[in-house]
Amino acid sequence: MIRHTVVFNLKHAHGSLMEKSFMRDAKAALQDIPGVKKFEQLKQVSKKNDYEFGFSMEFADQAAYTAYNDHPKHVKFVEERWKREVEKFMEIDYEPI
Amino acid sequence: MIRHTVVFNLKHAHGSLMEKSFMRDAKAALQDIPGVKKFEQLKQVSKKNDYEFGFSMEFADQAAYTAYNDHPKHVKFVEERWKREVEKFMEIDYEPI
Repeated sequence: MIRHTVVFNLKHAHGSLMEKSFMRDAKAALQDIPGVKKFEQLKQVSKKNDYEFGFSMEFADQAAYTAYNDHPKHVKFVEERWKREVEKFMEIDYEPI
Repeated sequence: MIRHTVVFNLKHAHGSLMEKSFMRDAKAALQDIPGVKKFEQLKQVSKKNDYEFGFSMEFADQAAYTAYNDHPKHVKFVEERWKREVEKFMEIDYEPI
């Protein structure tokens, strides 16, 4: 199992329609890509860092994760939305020990 | 639900007995503290950051999370092991949107 997470901030104002649109469209674009399990949209709430949102999803193995990364729906979302609307982000991926 | 995660590096050599000891003792100290659910020890595998390990756990609410933070077993572990053996870390906490 690989758990792929990304913590990020948007360029949009808090509570804006643009923010809501980004989150809604991200879910629609990504959660049904083959191999994606346990897709979650999260609010980052620790005051020890300044990120505001997170996504988390799981893949059975590296092949499923790679297929997701290369999937046209993921590539299109990254190019058309993520790169334009995300201010900063950090990816953290986990495997069980 | 609050998911508390921390991504970190140890001062110890990879695969060392000190590394194994830290992970084993962290699990023993933390996973049975009241309120801790879904305690996980993880390997960080993304090449887009340089952290090496992670812990993840969930709490029902902020009161349970605060009780964990204040619990003597947690305080003792942080003082005697975490502060001495961890090179760097970042805490990321999530709530569902």
